[in-house]
Amino acid sequence: MNLYRVAILSIGNEVLSGDTLNTNAAWIAARCTASGAQVVEQRTVPDSVDAIVTTLRELRARCELVITTGGLGPTHDDCTVAALLELFGDHLVLDEPTLKRLEAYAAERGRQMTDRLRSQAMIPSTARVLPNPIGSAPGLFIEGRDDAAAIMVLPGVPREMELIMEQSGIPLLTRALVQRGSDILAERVLLTGGIPESVLADRIEPFRQQLPPEVELAFLPSALTVRLRLRAMGPASTVQSLLDDAVALLTPAIGPALLSDRDERLVEVLQREFCQRGKTLTVAESCTGGMLGAEITSVPGSSAYFLGGLICYADSVKIHFGGVQAETLARHGAVSQQTVEELASYIRAVYGSDYAVAISGIAGPGGGSSDKPVGTVWIAVADQHQCHAQRYSFGSDRHQNRVRACAAAMLMLIERLRAIDG
Amino acid sequence: MNLYRVAILSIGNEVLSGDTLNTNAAWIAARCTASGAQVVEQRTVPDSVDAIVTTLRELRARCELVITTGGLGPTHDDCTVAALLELFGDHLVLDEPTLKRLEAYAAERGRQMTDRLRSQAMIPSTARVLPNPIGSAPGLFIEGRDDAAAIMVLPGVPREMELIMEQSGIPLLTRALVQRGSDILAERVLLTGGIPESVLADRIEPFRQQLPPEVELAFLPSALTVRLRLRAMGPASTVQSLLDDAVALLTPAIGPALLSDRDERLVEVLQREFCQRGKTLTVAESCTGGMLGAEITSVPGSSAYFLGGLICYADSVKIHFGGVQAETLARHGAVSQQTVEELASYIRAVYGSDYAVAISGIAGPGGGSSDKPVGTVWIAVADQHQCHAQRYSFGSDRHQNRVRACAAAMLMLIERLRAIDG
Repeated sequence: MNLYRVAILSIGNEVLSGDTLNTNAAWIAARCTASGAQVVEQRTVPDSVDAIVTTLRELRARCELVITTGGLGPTHDDCTVAALLELFGDHLVLDEPTLKRLEAYAAERGRQMTDRLRSQAMIPSTARVLPNPIGSAPGLFIEGRDDAAAIMVLPGVPREMELIMEQSGIPLLTRALVQRGSDILAERVLLTGGIPESVLADRIEPFRQQLPPEVELAFLPSALTVRLRLRAMGPASTVQSLLDDAVALLTPAIGPALLSDRDERLVEVLQREFCQRGKTLTVAESCTGGMLGAEITSVPGSSAYFLGGLICYADSVKIHFGGVQAETLARHGAVSQQTVEELASYIRAVYGSDYAVAISGIAGPGGGSSDKPVGTVWIAVADQHQCHAQRYSFGSDRHQNRVRACAAAMLMLIERLRAIDG
Repeated sequence: MNLYRVAILSIGNEVLSGDTLNTNAAWIAARCTASGAQVVEQRTVPDSVDAIVTTLRELRARCELVITTGGLGPTHDDCTVAALLELFGDHLVLDEPTLKRLEAYAAERGRQMTDRLRSQAMIPSTARVLPNPIGSAPGLFIEGRDDAAAIMVLPGVPREMELIMEQSGIPLLTRALVQRGSDILAERVLLTGGIPESVLADRIEPFRQQLPPEVELAFLPSALTVRLRLRAMGPASTVQSLLDDAVALLTPAIGPALLSDRDERLVEVLQREFCQRGKTLTVAESCTGGMLGAEITSVPGSSAYFLGGLICYADSVKIHFGGVQAETLARHGAVSQQTVEELASYIRAVYGSDYAVAISGIAGPGGGSSDKPVGTVWIAVADQHQCHAQRYSFGSDRHQNRVRACAAAMLMLIERLRAIDG
């Protein structure tokens, strides 16, 4: 296999000390992997010329491209450019287009053009600029040689790094891969829900064995869903049809647990299912406290089906605004089939939506009992004709219990929609 | 300064390819830094004996301790132990206490004691076990020599890694630091809110200059809040009082923007302020769709002050359940002072809480106009006597706009509570 190897070097004391989570390295690695490159190493070093020079020397001998992030700003901490000058015995030159862009950048923000800002237009003579559309520090690119990798230098601010990569970095990488005739990596994702990873694995095992060896299958589980990721590496002319065949092989084996044949979030599937049918939704949330509404409205366009609903954290709110009988609470408790059924039916009828979902549970850490331990959650879905409730037993972690309750509610809704409204 | 240098080595193809965000490295780095050790490098390498051996050789020459995560499981991918054997020319021995623990582990889960599980009790003869209280793979520790660092070997599952570190790893590290007479790092955090980082920096600049050189001040901004972090490195006998003096110096300069002298979340301050005064809260959320309620109820004990409220995403819900006049919407629009004031006043009165907060805004990407561009958010806080509204102009990112709206609402509530209820 003809590999194009990439190393990722993160520069910055704040990453090294653990103050900042290194999301940049994962983002770059995922994009490089998806482009067909092989990430062979990631490193983080301090804002130190010596550390950067030493590390660049080591990494350049091990790969075709080193991508660095961080240390490009205008303050005394930032020493990535100084390290490049030392590594190459190079000097700074003024880059006129960058200077023009910085002048416009300052003018837009009503700022003076300071020496400090102007210094960002000085770049190593061996480098060329990868323009930064939203920030002051430009990206840089230095060509590789036979015995030493190319270097792509990016700022550490995630959004700036991402835009430079999208606009300049990934196209450069793709061109390099094509020039080398490297194999490409193709990927398909199947989103499944409501079926444990081990059951899913058993169900598709006989079909998995029929997959050609070039196709790699991975199970990526998250709250109540599992992503099946199919990857194939090979010549561009053949990998796509390999994956199409693999998807066609696995789809019948997955059955109704298949939620989507795209790599998308559960809430995006929910939105599409509702919008396709022109149906509307309301919610009544107790232990999730608004988390399901927040998840639903995180997707642009959610107003096409989501009307809103009730956060009924206190029992008084359940009774006075959620249609729950005081007697129901007294007899069965707030976390019960009766309570969520009364909530879902009432909210649906009164708010006038096609569907309503109600969630009530014991998120923890307190509030559990032997009957209803922490992690017990009741969820009901009401439509025009009926109301269907289900009990779940999640774990002991408050956050995980709330996240799973939201996922379970979305899965129940999708299932009802598909069953009733075809 | 007497430094104890640590390198962190993450092992795993899934981290390298960007499928998994490397939260382990940040967690370990933060804990090591807080203990007074200096993290000098972080690396990620593939599940490959060669790569692990080469990297361990390089790193052991540069520090006093290498901490590895990942590659400890029982499958063919996992090769960290094989790498240790090769590095030290070592062989495996059976660790009886681990075998006993694994037998109990299998019994608890109703599983057979398989060869695969038993293999987890075989450890390198030079290593000692750091027990894993919740998983099957034990941690390992290999003492350092004068010319080569000690190695601490941890599983990649975050919760297992964290528990082994808490129970065994950090105590080992602390003992090593004490034995060397290393300086310790002490830290204090002041949480400020409602004041931009640059204004805060200007306000405290004269005081910052009076700080002793051992005290390092950092500004850590997030949505509408800034954490001021004070760190001092030095002998255990003196650093704490250095920081006490620094806090006493800065506190008056920060003034009312000081929310807390502990490192806590804004929502935790909100909960304490409400609970101390015995007051209750309800919400009416439009553009945030439940996100504020979800944030509030993420903290255990929130039921002591939070009753719930309304998710009024659709205008019909604002009118029929939020007390907004149809005429108000027609004349001023859903994102207006009038709408949020009507919402907050109505919800407070009808739900019977001491305070209510209402949020309505244009989160984006669609829905903006020249009058009310994306990022425009109105927030109102109502109490028994009055209702106070404020307009905010955030940015263009939907998620950030919603997060900032929630932070702004919490800041307004804290300000009103402190002003009215002392």
